Amino acid sequence: MTDEAFGAFRDELIDSGLVIDAGAEGLYGRSFDYERIVSGIMGLTTRTGADEGATTVHFPPVIPRWLLERTDYLKSFPDLTGSVHSFRGDDKMHARLLALVDAGDDWVEVLEPADVVLRPAACHPVYPLCTGGPLPAGGRRFEVHGWCFRHEPSRDPARMLAFRMHEFVYVGDPGGADGHSEVWVARGTEMYESLGLEIDVVVANDPFFGRAGKVLAANQRAEALKLEFVSPITSTESPTAIGSVNRHQDHFGSTFGIESADGAVAHSACFAVGVDRTALALLRRHGLDISSWPAAVQARLWP
Amino acid sequence: MTDEAFGAFRDELIDSGLVIDAGAEGLYGRSFDYERIVSGIMGLTTRTGADEGATTVHFPPVIPRWLLERTDYLKSFPDLTGSVHSFRGDDKMHARLLALVDAGDDWVEVLEPADVVLRPAACHPVYPLCTGGPLPAGGRRFEVHGWCFRHEPSRDPARMLAFRMHEFVYVGDPGGADGHSEVWVARGTEMYESLGLEIDVVVANDPFFGRAGKVLAANQRAEALKLEFVSPITSTESPTAIGSVNRHQDHFGSTFGIESADGAVAHSACFAVGVDRTALALLRRHGLDISSWPAAVQARLWP
Repeated sequence: MTDEAFGAFRDELIDSGLVIDAGAEGLYGRSFDYERIVSGIMGLTTRTGADEGATTVHFPPVIPRWLLERTDYLKSFPDLTGSVHSFRGDDKMHARLLALVDAGDDWVEVLEPADVVLRPAACHPVYPLCTGGPLPAGGRRFEVHGWCFRHEPSRDPARMLAFRMHEFVYVGDPGGADGHSEVWVARGTEMYESLGLEIDVVVANDPFFGRAGKVLAANQRAEALKLEFVSPITSTESPTAIGSVNRHQDHFGSTFGIESADGAVAHSACFAVGVDRTALALLRRHGLDISSWPAAVQARLWP
Repeated sequence: MTDEAFGAFRDELIDSGLVIDAGAEGLYGRSFDYERIVSGIMGLTTRTGADEGATTVHFPPVIPRWLLERTDYLKSFPDLTGSVHSFRGDDKMHARLLALVDAGDDWVEVLEPADVVLRPAACHPVYPLCTGGPLPAGGRRFEVHGWCFRHEPSRDPARMLAFRMHEFVYVGDPGGADGHSEVWVARGTEMYESLGLEIDVVVANDPFFGRAGKVLAANQRAEALKLEFVSPITSTESPTAIGSVNRHQDHFGSTFGIESADGAVAHSACFAVGVDRTALALLRRHGLDISSWPAAVQARLWP
């Protein structure tokens, strides 16, 4: 995909007023109409999983630093991390901070790390809720959505620094995790297709960092642990992932000491909708004038 | 206010399941019921300002670093800042990062500042939208809400690290800014009182940092530039600000070069609802069992 193709759709979105250049690469404001699409997608996602009996939980855009450290995120995706730093000095140190800012120099050297980092995926804060004894038979199910951050500045409008993710998560035994994945591959496909989107479900890998990451990516693909729902946004030849189904095996179970009902290390899996990417796929598919979208699609989004 | 009083209400909220300890001081998850209150408050706020003809815009929880630098935020509130840092190194630097993490050492030294910082107030990204020529006669009005961050870890449940703010903003001439403030003092009071909250409107100041901050705070109070809607949350003697009306004079106008219709430096003002604090004030006032809240209050929140 070329920068020109990214740029063309990005310009169209910004010219239409649906998306606003917020002044940093990959950072966008959203219009009222764009957010109507977002609300529609999130409502449809909730209705699609309404029979799961999931516990709905909401978390802020930041998570504890220890959570990121424990999940191997720094090993796998250091480049996507958003570490939060603040100022804890006195008046003298403050004078130094302001002198650096005035000189146009790098002022962050006087900051110290805060106890939080930006949340890379909606589901991360859910797993620590599952500790403290074996899970009930059948495991636990969560619905969770909210703002996520990945540091990958890009001209591609589908690669936003900050975006919404909406997930249905299962934590329990291996069979339950596999079942959750199977169910949501089917449900996700049906949900996206009901919006008129052309969808392929493909084996994929996370963007693991560096040389060691190549091995991790190959293993993930070999076991088909990650399936992506891809649909054209900036390109028909290279469609974009607008959702995924992920089997984590015992990654989170062993990391946080989660026990399934029979006392074994818990497995987990999630279905994740990339809400902003799904909005962009809809705008690409049906056009930038929402009022002209097919009635059936509008009825699905805004019943 | 004592730590014990904070702790008592915090424990009640967590025991009820409405609020979840997210693993860092000042960081909380929210239940489905808690978020119903939030949605109700935001819907009521929108309806209260529906006749403003405001442009609704949405922005992510992060803003460009240059925006924070230009707004004097580092001068006034360095301690509340959330600067975002990421990893931009190679495999060798990555090995060093992981060695630091494994040793339990401070690993942030290998990070570099990203182009973004956490958003301290909902309205900050709005002002750069007003540049590029004089504003229309009558100025511009915006409705904006979303996640904000202030680094002030505390046991006080009303002092969250990450919280929602919902604002109506005016940018235009000085008379329009004063008018916006007057209208919203009245509307805000009526809105909060319609929810059964006991409200006082008081002259207040922002928590300006350090020695120089004392002068800024005194000036702000002397001119009554900030009025807060206060209501009991953890204490009846020291009620908490759950909303505010702020006259910025030409602070943002001169910072960003915004011109009013007659070519003068624009003035601005905003009405801001602390959405999470308003939710807590309602829980304090009407109890933790939402279904037992007065019918009139429920009708206002969920018409």
